[in-house]
Amino acid sequence: MRSDEKPGRKAASSPGEDAPFRLDPIGLVHSPFTSQAGVPVQPALAEPEDAGTIEIYEQFAAGLDDIDRFERIWVISWFHRAGPVRLRVTPYLDRQQRGLFATRAPSRPNPIGISPVRLLRREGRILYVADLDLLDGTPVLDLKPYAPTFDVFPVSRQGWLEDRTPHSGRADDRFAPDR
Amino acid sequence: MRSDEKPGRKAASSPGEDAPFRLDPIGLVHSPFTSQAGVPVQPALAEPEDAGTIEIYEQFAAGLDDIDRFERIWVISWFHRAGPVRLRVTPYLDRQQRGLFATRAPSRPNPIGISPVRLLRREGRILYVADLDLLDGTPVLDLKPYAPTFDVFPVSRQGWLEDRTPHSGRADDRFAPDR
Repeated sequence: MRSDEKPGRKAASSPGEDAPFRLDPIGLVHSPFTSQAGVPVQPALAEPEDAGTIEIYEQFAAGLDDIDRFERIWVISWFHRAGPVRLRVTPYLDRQQRGLFATRAPSRPNPIGISPVRLLRREGRILYVADLDLLDGTPVLDLKPYAPTFDVFPVSRQGWLEDRTPHSGRADDRFAPDR
Repeated sequence: MRSDEKPGRKAASSPGEDAPFRLDPIGLVHSPFTSQAGVPVQPALAEPEDAGTIEIYEQFAAGLDDIDRFERIWVISWFHRAGPVRLRVTPYLDRQQRGLFATRAPSRPNPIGISPVRLLRREGRILYVADLDLLDGTPVLDLKPYAPTFDVFPVSRQGWLEDRTPHSGRADDRFAPDR
């Protein structure tokens, strides 16, 4: 696609070069959280009891080999219960409106989440995880290993989060569908 | 969706609860890389000249406010030139086959990339970035701030990457469409 072409009109198979793209889940989150309010804002702000499982569908199970040698994994998920898209939001940990892309709020044009959860153990195609910040029933799109080699950077500026060192944080219902 | 239901048969609007889900890009990567061979394997392994721009389409530009106060951002992208899905792969930095989900290889069921690139500056809806590991023309699905508060974890195990401390790394064509 060149920059002078418009995004996405044609139907397409996945993967492919033509938008819109199509996603089929590879699995499903089982968690204690049935509504947004009370869910940890991020895995980094979770408590020990915020644990659950990730069920990977049978046809993708072969891709799980070697994953249990990683202590943490990225769960790429679909925010299936996110409300309408908003390009300006007040994030959970802030009191001021911010541009959506400067936040991790779920009300995104493509509501994709990246959650670095702790992998406790694997039993076949079931992954037991902690530091979980996802609703029960969240569709899982992908899993990737969390690796300091790839994912840890020294950063001197982190925008509106700069003066905040939250040690915990729970969502409310501000991004629920009926708000 | 309950765990006893099959994934994805119905058509659905986005965002929504029913798979398959539909993605429309919010923008486009402009980079020096026109084919897989030679692209940095990860942003962490890039050289200073691996830079480019991310063009966000006009209708999403309002979501960019406040983003330039972050030094690094996650570019969530669609690997539009990835080859067929493979559940076992030999990753670029390894010599052994691994389960796909224990790697960051592009040949994924949902070919979504997460690239923590360095944000140099913003000019309107154009972001100038370095540490870029994406092909020219890569569709951008989402942007999120990189925040040590959320993204940096102490990790004692990182699987097959454990004995490796690569300081650079370039792709070859093993995951190209015609391989």
